[in-house]
Amino acid sequence: MSRFISRRFDSLKEYVPGEQPQDKKYVKLNTNESPYPPAPGVIERINDAEVRNLKLYSDPECRRLREMLAVQYGVEIGNVFVSNGSDESLSFAFMAFCDADCGAIFPDISYGFYKVYANLYGIRYTAVPLLEDFSIRPSDYYNAGATVVIANPNAPTGIALTIAEIEEIVKRNPDNVVVIDEAYVDFGAESAVALTKKYDNLLVVQTFSKSRSMAGARLGFAIGCEALIADLNKIKFSTNPYNVNRLTCAAGEATLAAQDYYNDNCRKIIETRAWTAEKLANLGFSMTDSKANFLFAKHESMDGEALYLALKARGILVRHFSADRISPYLRITVGSPEEMQALIDALTEILQNGGTV
Amino acid sequence: MSRFISRRFDSLKEYVPGEQPQDKKYVKLNTNESPYPPAPGVIERINDAEVRNLKLYSDPECRRLREMLAVQYGVEIGNVFVSNGSDESLSFAFMAFCDADCGAIFPDISYGFYKVYANLYGIRYTAVPLLEDFSIRPSDYYNAGATVVIANPNAPTGIALTIAEIEEIVKRNPDNVVVIDEAYVDFGAESAVALTKKYDNLLVVQTFSKSRSMAGARLGFAIGCEALIADLNKIKFSTNPYNVNRLTCAAGEATLAAQDYYNDNCRKIIETRAWTAEKLANLGFSMTDSKANFLFAKHESMDGEALYLALKARGILVRHFSADRISPYLRITVGSPEEMQALIDALTEILQNGGTV
Repeated sequence: MSRFISRRFDSLKEYVPGEQPQDKKYVKLNTNESPYPPAPGVIERINDAEVRNLKLYSDPECRRLREMLAVQYGVEIGNVFVSNGSDESLSFAFMAFCDADCGAIFPDISYGFYKVYANLYGIRYTAVPLLEDFSIRPSDYYNAGATVVIANPNAPTGIALTIAEIEEIVKRNPDNVVVIDEAYVDFGAESAVALTKKYDNLLVVQTFSKSRSMAGARLGFAIGCEALIADLNKIKFSTNPYNVNRLTCAAGEATLAAQDYYNDNCRKIIETRAWTAEKLANLGFSMTDSKANFLFAKHESMDGEALYLALKARGILVRHFSADRISPYLRITVGSPEEMQALIDALTEILQNGGTV
Repeated sequence: MSRFISRRFDSLKEYVPGEQPQDKKYVKLNTNESPYPPAPGVIERINDAEVRNLKLYSDPECRRLREMLAVQYGVEIGNVFVSNGSDESLSFAFMAFCDADCGAIFPDISYGFYKVYANLYGIRYTAVPLLEDFSIRPSDYYNAGATVVIANPNAPTGIALTIAEIEEIVKRNPDNVVVIDEAYVDFGAESAVALTKKYDNLLVVQTFSKSRSMAGARLGFAIGCEALIADLNKIKFSTNPYNVNRLTCAAGEATLAAQDYYNDNCRKIIETRAWTAEKLANLGFSMTDSKANFLFAKHESMDGEALYLALKARGILVRHFSADRISPYLRITVGSPEEMQALIDALTEILQNGGTV
């Protein structure tokens, strides 16, 4: 850091994303990307004419894309905000709805970025411990007196709350915003989007990065009542009005026009998740009940970090977190059947060798 | 706004970008886009394989792109930061280098976003009046005791400081960061990039939006000493580590590989600027000495807003600002020769009709 940076960032610890090694080819099961490419319609849409048009700014309103999202989710265009990845929607929500008077509350084990945003913006926060089984106790978030942020399904556990549990949290916080981060919702959990029509304090955030195979295009969105969306727009137009670029916007539109393809992919990933879970159980792993496109697995005898390293040595990347309660675990993205077979083969070999790299 | 938004944003006025009408085709001379498409190499690079790879996250380090920028500007990769448009670099700079103790100082007539950033982050700022002829007096920024932000050339005036004047400002603020926003530098001004090797308090911000025909791709960058770049990275990795998407990154690399093509375009735009300035002078306009890809022009008898409206009615969009001293002026992007001919024809007609729409 330089001698010029504001002292308020002295203790800020930035987020550490999963490895994105550029050196060699791995079986990449560490950042919850989809094993399936974008739909053929997306590939057709990003044609020479679109690239030539890069000389022109994008529509700062992203009107067509927001209209299509509104239709798909049964809301109005004024209920939809789009952003440079869902991280940007989350960042703006922390900025807009938290301050010196209103803190944030979220689970202690969840998307690691929540506490980074809180620290960045100087917001005090409460990190509520998950229960022994890694589940969230909804009543811990009633009358929170702070902006509530919950990932559903939660990460890296994959455990989902029911829609009734989410509604109760929203209802019990009438004077605070409840942000539900549904990055992984399409893999088996229930979306809270419909509740945004009933509650003016609910903001649902989703992403094109996982179920829609577009992690590299950076496209996220938020759905909520018009006033909440206007708040996010106030922040957007005060930081970066053209936050979503032309090609991402076009790719997003083509993606929404091919929803059946993505539904099929989700179905395949859910099947592969079940197959992998069974194989992992046979190898001595225990797992949470994941509704996401990853498994959260702990071996009966081998340490999480040792397994992570042994897999990496065999060209397979999974994610390991060193935080206390979760350090025995691996978070394993559900890839293609072939990738999961490679994972199971590697683990079988590692465990036979007693964990030798 | 909702009842939930932080009270600190009560008086925040967001930036208003130039019109991006989606309804009909205009001769678009209002947002300083290039009239020339990206180089053929950019169009080739955004191929099916790149789009298929959108399923994977981008390299959060944008290593290849930053290497190429480093080579082009004669610095090291650690001196280069890339962002989602240069707006993001500027936003991060305000966030990193200003706070309750350290305000900002910039010209009162300049890129309208500077005061928006200051207000967004609750930073007090001084807006220094330009001189009568719209030029910047360098000594107004000596020993500023605040982060200095200067667009060079300035917008919407197009007037440039010399490199010696910039260096003096940097030298006279040893304990504050000086941000030089060089969005328009390639059209005839001198870049301060080389000075970043000599001064640890200088940050130069540039963009691919203007001279590199990529407004719609959103790619900006900043060059400075390693510690300043580390500060920007601290903010980036605390908001949105994957801030530059895959296709933009790839397009940026292909752009840098075709620098001759863009140099040619700049030369053409400078020629067209001279041609247009002469024609405008013949029509009774006076102009600043613009070193940018726009002209800042005032008619001897007709009001700026009336001209703007009359041009819009004829399908030509230019930018008009209603702020006091500049309301008589139009900011006119230098487009292709054909577009400028259309502009001159329309103005000729408007002025003959005494300004009737």
